[in-house]
Amino acid sequence: MDKTLIFGHKSPDTDTICSALVYADLKNALGLEARPVRLGDVNKETQFALDRFGVEAPELIEKVDDDVDNVILVDHNEFQQSVDNIQDVHISEVIDHHRVANFETKEPLYFRVEPVGCTATILNKMHKENAVILSKENAGLLLSAIISDSLLLKSPTCTQADKEAAHELAEIAGVDLETYGLEMLKAGADLSDKSALDLVTMDAKEFTIGEANVQIAQVNAVDTSQIYESQAAIEQEMKRLISDKGLELFLFVATDFLENDSDVLALGSAKEKVEKAFDVSLDANNRALLKGVVSRKKQIVTNLSEQF
Amino acid sequence: MDKTLIFGHKSPDTDTICSALVYADLKNALGLEARPVRLGDVNKETQFALDRFGVEAPELIEKVDDDVDNVILVDHNEFQQSVDNIQDVHISEVIDHHRVANFETKEPLYFRVEPVGCTATILNKMHKENAVILSKENAGLLLSAIISDSLLLKSPTCTQADKEAAHELAEIAGVDLETYGLEMLKAGADLSDKSALDLVTMDAKEFTIGEANVQIAQVNAVDTSQIYESQAAIEQEMKRLISDKGLELFLFVATDFLENDSDVLALGSAKEKVEKAFDVSLDANNRALLKGVVSRKKQIVTNLSEQF
Repeated sequence: MDKTLIFGHKSPDTDTICSALVYADLKNALGLEARPVRLGDVNKETQFALDRFGVEAPELIEKVDDDVDNVILVDHNEFQQSVDNIQDVHISEVIDHHRVANFETKEPLYFRVEPVGCTATILNKMHKENAVILSKENAGLLLSAIISDSLLLKSPTCTQADKEAAHELAEIAGVDLETYGLEMLKAGADLSDKSALDLVTMDAKEFTIGEANVQIAQVNAVDTSQIYESQAAIEQEMKRLISDKGLELFLFVATDFLENDSDVLALGSAKEKVEKAFDVSLDANNRALLKGVVSRKKQIVTNLSEQF
Repeated sequence: MDKTLIFGHKSPDTDTICSALVYADLKNALGLEARPVRLGDVNKETQFALDRFGVEAPELIEKVDDDVDNVILVDHNEFQQSVDNIQDVHISEVIDHHRVANFETKEPLYFRVEPVGCTATILNKMHKENAVILSKENAGLLLSAIISDSLLLKSPTCTQADKEAAHELAEIAGVDLETYGLEMLKAGADLSDKSALDLVTMDAKEFTIGEANVQIAQVNAVDTSQIYESQAAIEQEMKRLISDKGLELFLFVATDFLENDSDVLALGSAKEKVEKAFDVSLDANNRALLKGVVSRKKQIVTNLSEQF
């Protein structure tokens, strides 16, 4: 009989899983019975972090049961990213760092969104506000979330608050930020068991830019050329999705977090927009190297928006 | 050339006006140029508070000008309660204590909603978080907002945090909470210059309860019998609105904040729901005394909801 469930978004990433785990511990320390859960599979990067700090993944749920009194959303607020029966449950809190949209409650709640790079940065601050000491394990989980969302503090979404939190947390967790961060990102970048369909769907988001339907899939890799060994198969899946979804543009973005750039593959009737947006030429394989581009939200969508 | 405007909701009340004023001062103290404005007339209660603490009302605006970079919403978040061109402006922050709904941004922002009785209570906390000392005047304004929203700490919407803030603020402002609070509420309850139409519209909210359209107007008074001297004229306006808006129920709630109860007048095809909801009988004048009922949100809407 859970009083309160805490969960992040569907297709969970490291921030979603770790923030749910750590916030549940904070709530319990403050006397509120709360249990972390998840809405999807744990990815390799997150599993690496959990294993490193000896923490079990939260339990998977399909829907919120009737006997749950409250839910707390972390790392998201838009209902379409949340549990399927979110409309039927009582949301007591939201802790997030995204835009606010497609969200509604009947009653006042505790709703805390800050424009930082990671939910974990807000949770680190909340431990201080409540004078609760972070365990070594939980500091490691919050650190992992920041490394993941900021690509080791290099993404333009990363703020000064995220950087300061990451250094503090590395100290408490007893790890070297740079060394651990690279290990974790490399574990997540192991794409050896992924099919072409996996690659173009595992982290894909759809946007309406101007009047155009644009899909942008992103994968992190240590060696982007390895990914493109299967370019023919990747293109086939992209073309099928372009036709199925009526997309004007499908961008597949292979981001090298060591070099801090992205090798993109552009298909669709509006693919020339990519050339203007980033001042590059697509080669005969429909690809281009975007130097210094790692953030889908702050760099790719923003630059493309000016072209549509 | 304003960088940032701060404003509360349309039909401003004391919390909306005072929170905009005080938060602008806090922002300025923290180095952000911000200017408070308002979206409607200052009511008598708020004017009493402004006069008492020697503060000018913020300037009235009709819309946000093109050269404004950011707006900060206080005491509301729903777009229909905000400035008419809210969809076209960049919202950088929200500080509020209501439910979250009908709100959307493209970018992450600072969005802070806490389930307390008054925005001013959150602002008092934010001064402490930022180690900024409240002036006597600003403490007086925040205190006035809490007294207004909580009907002198008696409303069921009033939390422990609101009570503690009110006592702290009275100390800084150098006023006696009870004495000043009654003076301010009485100033607001001077309805001598109001027409019957004013009375039924000045603080009216529409709700969809079950399938029914319900309008609930509320006025605060020191002597509710005086209001009902013009009951015939009030009923005439209510009947016109019932017909114009297709309402199933119109409740006119005259709240006596000294006695802590409400003398309600119920019209419409669903008026018998009021009898069941509050276990009372409407008299020959369609009125009933609701003992201990002062909150539209927490008592009237909640109790009615169970009947529809």
